[in-house]
Amino acid sequence: MKSITTINEFKEGADIRGFFLCVEKHLRNTRSGDLYLDMVLRDRTGQIIAKLWNDVSEYQDKFSAGDAVVVAGNVDVYLDKLQLNVKKINVASVQSYGRYGYDPALIVPSAKGDTKEMWKELRSYIKMINNKYLKILVTSIYKKYENQLLTHPASVVMHHNYRSGLLEHTLSMTRIGIDLANHYNVDVDLLMTGIFLHDIGKVKEITSELEASYSDEGNLIGHIVLGRDIAIEVANKIKDFPADLLRKVEHLILSHQGQYDWQSPKKPKFKEALLLHLIDKMDAKMNLMMKAIDEDVEEGIWTSRRNYFRIPILKGDLAIMDNESK
Amino acid sequence: MKSITTINEFKEGADIRGFFLCVEKHLRNTRSGDLYLDMVLRDRTGQIIAKLWNDVSEYQDKFSAGDAVVVAGNVDVYLDKLQLNVKKINVASVQSYGRYGYDPALIVPSAKGDTKEMWKELRSYIKMINNKYLKILVTSIYKKYENQLLTHPASVVMHHNYRSGLLEHTLSMTRIGIDLANHYNVDVDLLMTGIFLHDIGKVKEITSELEASYSDEGNLIGHIVLGRDIAIEVANKIKDFPADLLRKVEHLILSHQGQYDWQSPKKPKFKEALLLHLIDKMDAKMNLMMKAIDEDVEEGIWTSRRNYFRIPILKGDLAIMDNESK
Amino acid sequence: MKSITTINEFKEGADIRGFFLCVEKHLRNTRSGDLYLDMVLRDRTGQIIAKLWNDVSEYQDKFSAGDAVVVAGNVDVYLDKLQLNVKKINVASVQSYGRYGYDPALIVPSAKGDTKEMWKELRSYIKMINNKYLKILVTSIYKKYENQLLTHPASVVMHHNYRSGLLEHTLSMTRIGIDLANHYNVDVDLLMTGIFLHDIGKVKEITSELEASYSDEGNLIGHIVLGRDIAIEVANKIKDFPADLLRKVEHLILSHQGQYDWQSPKKPKFKEALLLHLIDKMDAKMNLMMKAIDEDVEEGIWTSRRNYFRIPILKGDLAIMDNESK
Amino acid sequence: MKSITTINEFKEGADIRGFFLCVEKHLRNTRSGDLYLDMVLRDRTGQIIAKLWNDVSEYQDKFSAGDAVVVAGNVDVYLDKLQLNVKKINVASVQSYGRYGYDPALIVPSAKGDTKEMWKELRSYIKMINNKYLKILVTSIYKKYENQLLTHPASVVMHHNYRSGLLEHTLSMTRIGIDLANHYNVDVDLLMTGIFLHDIGKVKEITSELEASYSDEGNLIGHIVLGRDIAIEVANKIKDFPADLLRKVEHLILSHQGQYDWQSPKKPKFKEALLLHLIDKMDAKMNLMMKAIDEDVEEGIWTSRRNYFRIPILKGDLAIMDNESK
Amino acid sequence: MKSITTINEFKEGADIRGFFLCVEKHLRNTRSGDLYLDMVLRDRTGQIIAKLWNDVSEYQDKFSAGDAVVVAGNVDVYLDKLQLNVKKINVASVQSYGRYGYDPALIVPSAKGDTKEMWKELRSYIKMINNKYLKILVTSIYKKYENQLLTHPASVVMHHNYRSGLLEHTLSMTRIGIDLANHYNVDVDLLMTGIFLHDIGKVKEITSELEASYSDEGNLIGHIVLGRDIAIEVANKIKDFPADLLRKVEHLILSHQGQYDWQSPKKPKFKEALLLHLIDKMDAKMNLMMKAIDEDVEEGIWTSRRNYFRIPILKGDLAIMDNESK
Amino acid sequence: MKSITTINEFKEGADIRGFFLCVEKHLRNTRSGDLYLDMVLRDRTGQIIAKLWNDVSEYQDKFSAGDAVVVAGNVDVYLDKLQLNVKKINVASVQSYGRYGYDPALIVPSAKGDTKEMWKELRSYIKMINNKYLKILVTSIYKKYENQLLTHPASVVMHHNYRSGLLEHTLSMTRIGIDLANHYNVDVDLLMTGIFLHDIGKVKEITSELEASYSDEGNLIGHIVLGRDIAIEVANKIKDFPADLLRKVEHLILSHQGQYDWQSPKKPKFKEALLLHLIDKMDAKMNLMMKAIDEDVEEGIWTSRRNYFRIPILKGDLAIMDNESK
Repeated sequence: MKSITTINEFKEGADIRGFFLCVEKHLRNTRSGDLYLDMVLRDRTGQIIAKLWNDVSEYQDKFSAGDAVVVAGNVDVYLDKLQLNVKKINVASVQSYGRYGYDPALIVPSAKGDTKEMWKELRSYIKMINNKYLKILVTSIYKKYENQLLTHPASVVMHHNYRSGLLEHTLSMTRIGIDLANHYNVDVDLLMTGIFLHDIGKVKEITSELEASYSDEGNLIGHIVLGRDIAIEVANKIKDFPADLLRKVEHLILSHQGQYDWQSPKKPKFKEALLLHLIDKMDAKMNLMMKAIDEDVEEGIWTSRRNYFRIPILKGDLAIMDNESK
Repeated sequence: MKSITTINEFKEGADIRGFFLCVEKHLRNTRSGDLYLDMVLRDRTGQIIAKLWNDVSEYQDKFSAGDAVVVAGNVDVYLDKLQLNVKKINVASVQSYGRYGYDPALIVPSAKGDTKEMWKELRSYIKMINNKYLKILVTSIYKKYENQLLTHPASVVMHHNYRSGLLEHTLSMTRIGIDLANHYNVDVDLLMTGIFLHDIGKVKEITSELEASYSDEGNLIGHIVLGRDIAIEVANKIKDFPADLLRKVEHLILSHQGQYDWQSPKKPKFKEALLLHLIDKMDAKMNLMMKAIDEDVEEGIWTSRRNYFRIPILKGDLAIMDNESK
Repeated sequence: MKSITTINEFKEGADIRGFFLCVEKHLRNTRSGDLYLDMVLRDRTGQIIAKLWNDVSEYQDKFSAGDAVVVAGNVDVYLDKLQLNVKKINVASVQSYGRYGYDPALIVPSAKGDTKEMWKELRSYIKMINNKYLKILVTSIYKKYENQLLTHPASVVMHHNYRSGLLEHTLSMTRIGIDLANHYNVDVDLLMTGIFLHDIGKVKEITSELEASYSDEGNLIGHIVLGRDIAIEVANKIKDFPADLLRKVEHLILSHQGQYDWQSPKKPKFKEALLLHLIDKMDAKMNLMMKAIDEDVEEGIWTSRRNYFRIPILKGDLAIMDNESK
Repeated sequence: MKSITTINEFKEGADIRGFFLCVEKHLRNTRSGDLYLDMVLRDRTGQIIAKLWNDVSEYQDKFSAGDAVVVAGNVDVYLDKLQLNVKKINVASVQSYGRYGYDPALIVPSAKGDTKEMWKELRSYIKMINNKYLKILVTSIYKKYENQLLTHPASVVMHHNYRSGLLEHTLSMTRIGIDLANHYNVDVDLLMTGIFLHDIGKVKEITSELEASYSDEGNLIGHIVLGRDIAIEVANKIKDFPADLLRKVEHLILSHQGQYDWQSPKKPKFKEALLLHLIDKMDAKMNLMMKAIDEDVEEGIWTSRRNYFRIPILKGDLAIMDNESK
Repeated sequence: MKSITTINEFKEGADIRGFFLCVEKHLRNTRSGDLYLDMVLRDRTGQIIAKLWNDVSEYQDKFSAGDAVVVAGNVDVYLDKLQLNVKKINVASVQSYGRYGYDPALIVPSAKGDTKEMWKELRSYIKMINNKYLKILVTSIYKKYENQLLTHPASVVMHHNYRSGLLEHTLSMTRIGIDLANHYNVDVDLLMTGIFLHDIGKVKEITSELEASYSDEGNLIGHIVLGRDIAIEVANKIKDFPADLLRKVEHLILSHQGQYDWQSPKKPKFKEALLLHLIDKMDAKMNLMMKAIDEDVEEGIWTSRRNYFRIPILKGDLAIMDNESK
Repeated sequence: MKSITTINEFKEGADIRGFFLCVEKHLRNTRSGDLYLDMVLRDRTGQIIAKLWNDVSEYQDKFSAGDAVVVAGNVDVYLDKLQLNVKKINVASVQSYGRYGYDPALIVPSAKGDTKEMWKELRSYIKMINNKYLKILVTSIYKKYENQLLTHPASVVMHHNYRSGLLEHTLSMTRIGIDLANHYNVDVDLLMTGIFLHDIGKVKEITSELEASYSDEGNLIGHIVLGRDIAIEVANKIKDFPADLLRKVEHLILSHQGQYDWQSPKKPKFKEALLLHLIDKMDAKMNLMMKAIDEDVEEGIWTSRRNYFRIPILKGDLAIMDNESK
């Protein structure tokens, strides 16, 4: 297969091959009545309108909106904008196209760290839990949902909202959790269990598609309650899991958002729950500021106000300000 | 046993017999070093400070704060207020003192209707559910928690916060539910199931003591999530209970408060859920206004502002207002 | 006259005849200096840009923006979009074009029920009022404003914001009012009077044009206060109308929005007023959810978040969810 | 009659004569079964509990709670506090006791200025209105409600909440209104009419008793809407009063609170309405700060936080602060 | 030089000369690879896209985005819109092009009054300050920042957000300050000093470019704290400036926004501070309403809701409303 | 001197010696006209009313309200409560009474750690700052304000509101600051400087009396702006302190509260400022929960709702909950 071209490299008249996320796909009629496919394709570098005019019946069932696709085509210009004429298109997966260079990270934003390294480090923290019930609880849950935990985003539109964002967020909290637990003299095992499990419901709330969206149970129940379900279900299979300990784990999950209007049905009512909430919020806010800086496209040292904080964020160094200094 | 005297009938010097809720109980020392019991007693008509000076060792283990008690004693005056000198005191229950006139309704506020009649009527509505899964779900849960459902309040300090208030509130919603479901063309069975189960978690959230308070799981988990647990647990024992139907029932319970800041982790997302929330709110608000009128002690036709609504409520008829009419 | 074509049926090159709402109308110059009319036309199926190039002086005074118009013309394409070249255009009314098929319901969204049937049913409820003063008050007002009540929307952009929406909304509340009044043991006549009159000020607040907007007095005074004016004015012509009863009717109208920030200058201060508010809100919210479902254009079973509730609404049946079920 | 003693001058054992507001009055039984009157009396200097033990049947119908009373009695001590034994008591009015020194200003807080002078000055401003319709409107209304306008407070618990407070507040706004109208180039007559009439509804909302409280129509309708009623009623009797001018006056009154949650059903929608609101708010806030300073009882230069602003207010001069200055 | 053409006078094919604000400037490649300049130009009458195709290397360093520019070019049409082909372009300043008619007021919105006259009047008010320390403080600061005070806007997007808006706003407050200070019996000198200095920090917060934006210190510190810095710095150079007086001036500046969420770190704590805040808010709100009316482009007597107040504002006279009058 | 008795050990009839905070002191007349001192005394164990009847003229000038006092007296009972008859009273200081056991920690709540140890540890962290300007800035400030930093509370009524609370709070943040700075990859020196200086303004805002209250400049300016003043004043004396670095330090201090309504005039605009705010909030909230648990007096495992969080906090271990477990 020829080399891959990303959308930001498209030029009028060029023949290209590439991997994209098919964001929209509609079967339409030309004014003359022929069928064609009207699509929107996206990769990490941009987005483009694409049309497939020929062999529509052959290609239309090969892929759906939301799929990763491999495409061959030709770039032209329509109404002063670049557009892609698709010649061939098919679903892309790591199995089928990995050897040709396909990697989901090409078409959707992803965490910066290496997924496997992050997973390995996270597992090492789980081994440090001393309480045998909590250790087996976390271990069992992480084994059961390993696949999702490796790739899930931590949210659809907020913090860590990219491939493996949930893993990155959890690991980040884990790294600072033990020290903070000791510093504030709270139960380390309980806090760390809270960190590992607080967002576990996201594996059910957010669909595992490339284009993250809410599942039916995500819409109806939500990750907070679904996460507690996972903890209860697994704990109930662990012999003699203490009832009071489970209630505390449930509360950790239910209260981790910290406020009712962030959809937590309870506010933190013991020290580990409060600290879990504060670490979660710290990690989310720091990530949101780093994203605001990364994603900003303004010239100069200040971002625009179009970010989570609704204020300009300082991106770089201040020039020396010599007001009044003369 | 002699006739019962209620607190509002106490007079200086009188010997009395009566049933009370023991609100507080403390073992204290007199200045001369002797032990005595310092208590607060309450019935539906008022509240009084009580002391037991003699045979303390005999009586002090016979009852606890929170118990219904049967008391014999003598009324005197201390620092210009009536006070009860207790001679005999013991725990009262329907079993032991019912024949002497004890009824919990004497010592704690209770719903106005007859509990058994209300229960019977409620059961008749359950039988009207057509969907066999929903009918067996509600029937099983109401059988399991019959005892609590007969006496529980619907809240600790808000609407229907009195003995059998939960039953009264649920029945009230039931009576209007079928018509409203038909009027708005929604699934009657689903709405009625929502009405029956929306507050079922209160049987776990609120302790069944005479003096209502929150249980540990009430504090940590809350009635919304606990109620969903009850529905899931029972549904899982019903053969072939449809998964999608259960999800809808769960959502009905989770979203019935309607807003995040009333501790619902989800807002209503389908018509039955929205209507359930609106009926629940209507019934609560109407009850709160009726309570505000009943409990007000101001003279005149307006209540004070010390009620849920923070405004004066019109209690009776307006006098004819002839301003400007001459 | 030839058959009517709706906007969603327009095809390039077709000659069409149809009825539309003229949303915008501007007299403009072509680059060569000739006059032409630049218009936006709308019907229930869509919206289109239209131009009239010839005989401008003949047609330009025949109609205004906001009018229902009958149009003959030809569809062509400009800048890749369909556009209508108007050949003939005139104001349409039921009197002049009814026999050719004109019906306001063709060009503006309308209530689903038959207007006359709804009106007839509403009148039957008025007759059930027992209090003679209230009955004559409502009867007189409904007689006086019959024309507006038949066609007015209940709001400009919120609930029941379509032709005859006010009638539909009032009837809907009426149908459930008597039962709810009895259920909560409030004065049925007073509640029903409140239902009939609570939004009567809308006949003055909203202009009766096809494209609803606010009148001057709507902007300056508002429907709540204007509605009370109507009640007072008519009551003052009824011999011996009791002063205290009128004050209650006034309060019902003034407080029906329930909260200051929804522009009610008073909160409900007696039971009928509170129940009126709750029924009004219930009917509005149920209508808003049904509208959100009807108007949504997303694929799948969930609406977008672009609705009154700012959350996805479940439009259809859940697929069986088998998570965890294996 | 002997000289008057105010409550702050009461001493144990003293015989006193004085004028008071009877804040509470209850007919009660002594422990021996005799009737007595239990009262709370207040004047500008303080408040005291009072009892009348003898000739109860003679005195009990002579006055009511809320009345100004003339009292003769004797001061003693009960439970370590001063208490008044009433020997004689009767209703006091300017007619009957003015010559003995009775003045309502002795028993309720009053505006500082001389009422008649304030009224005279206010009338002079009315004469400056140029628009003949507005001048006759304001003149007629002020004539009709002259008695109430002379003594009414401007609110029950907020700004200018004392005898003649409404007059003082209106005059204060009037004094700055003309200049501000010219400065902001708005219609002087319209603004001044707004100033004169914005709070006119208070004469109906607040009862004219010494102890201000809300009337029935104040509770049900409120001063904003009642004030507009007064303006409309009078304007309708003025020949050819222009309809558009009246609508503007109505809007001035309806919108003067400026925000929905201060019970204005409309926000200011033209310049005179906005300026009226801003002047009203300025005058209210300045009065509230001056009251906070006047009523504060803390030692030192800062008030407590128990005032409208919930912050300490600087009452006097700062001592020279020399921190860091050495 | 030929006569100046403003953007609203541009016609297809015309050769024009004019002065504009260069809002955007990008160096881009044509599809054939040649460099060109892609610009957005603006004047008081509108905005247009402009391209410079030839001699790019000669012109591209002559000006930057944000500059005032003098342009010669030719108007043509692209994708149905007017566009300017720039032939010559250079930076414009009053020094270099004033004699050809350049005036910053041509390209950015400006206060209506004559700047020099306003400045002269403002200076006359400063002279009226009696307290010698305050007079020298204000005089020194106004001398130091005279240049900025002549041209600065009072805000970037809110009230008085145009050239010389700060001067206009301060002068407006000054004109009403003395009378209001006397009316409310507060220290005139202190209030007037507050008026002169409350927004002085804006000369540092807002860059003095034609296109107003925030400076680095504006973003990091803000005009409230920067303004206090200016007052302290100058006061410290005045011999024997009383410490307590300076603290009051500091508080006036810090608290003038009146509320924490408008970025004042303190609420007004004495009368002059409260009155300063109220005058500032009055002047800002009146200006915002006048701007809303001036800038509105709707037909009819009502503005759209797209203004600071989010409501329609009455722009002109009401037509006679004869509802109900027949 | 005899041994010290604390208030919780007082018994009727006992002679006592002790150290107390004199919370209130009033010179009053007995009913017979003699002078006496009426006082409220407090120590860490409780509060009591005290009277000095003899030698009033000798003692009344020896101490003031707010002083630490040494007292000899006798306990009796008045109106059923213990009261102290003071025989001798004088001001207590460490200098004069330290050898007799006086320690401010006896009479006001204090941080748990040893002040000198905490100070030493804090100094060791200052030495770790690498940036020479920041290190000298913090070192100089901590040297200048050492005395206040050793004993100041961190607030008057909120978190760490006890003797040496500011030191305890700063040290707690310091201990976790370096790790968190590294974790989030921000400038360690800048963050640590922010931690050291964020609350430095409290040494001026809060008076150093035993009974903490706000100074005049605390009331007028506030600790946020006063703290920035301290940083600027010291930095300006450090040769070549970089202007941009100082601006960042200023912003750290100004924005550390994170939100406008907590009186920060700016929100955090770079990563170190955001992290500083989050650490500050974490430390404050954890302290508030620990205080809520420590200060609660309810029986059982749940605190009352009368704490910062307005919810019950779990104080101890849950009993095993066996609901549903049978």
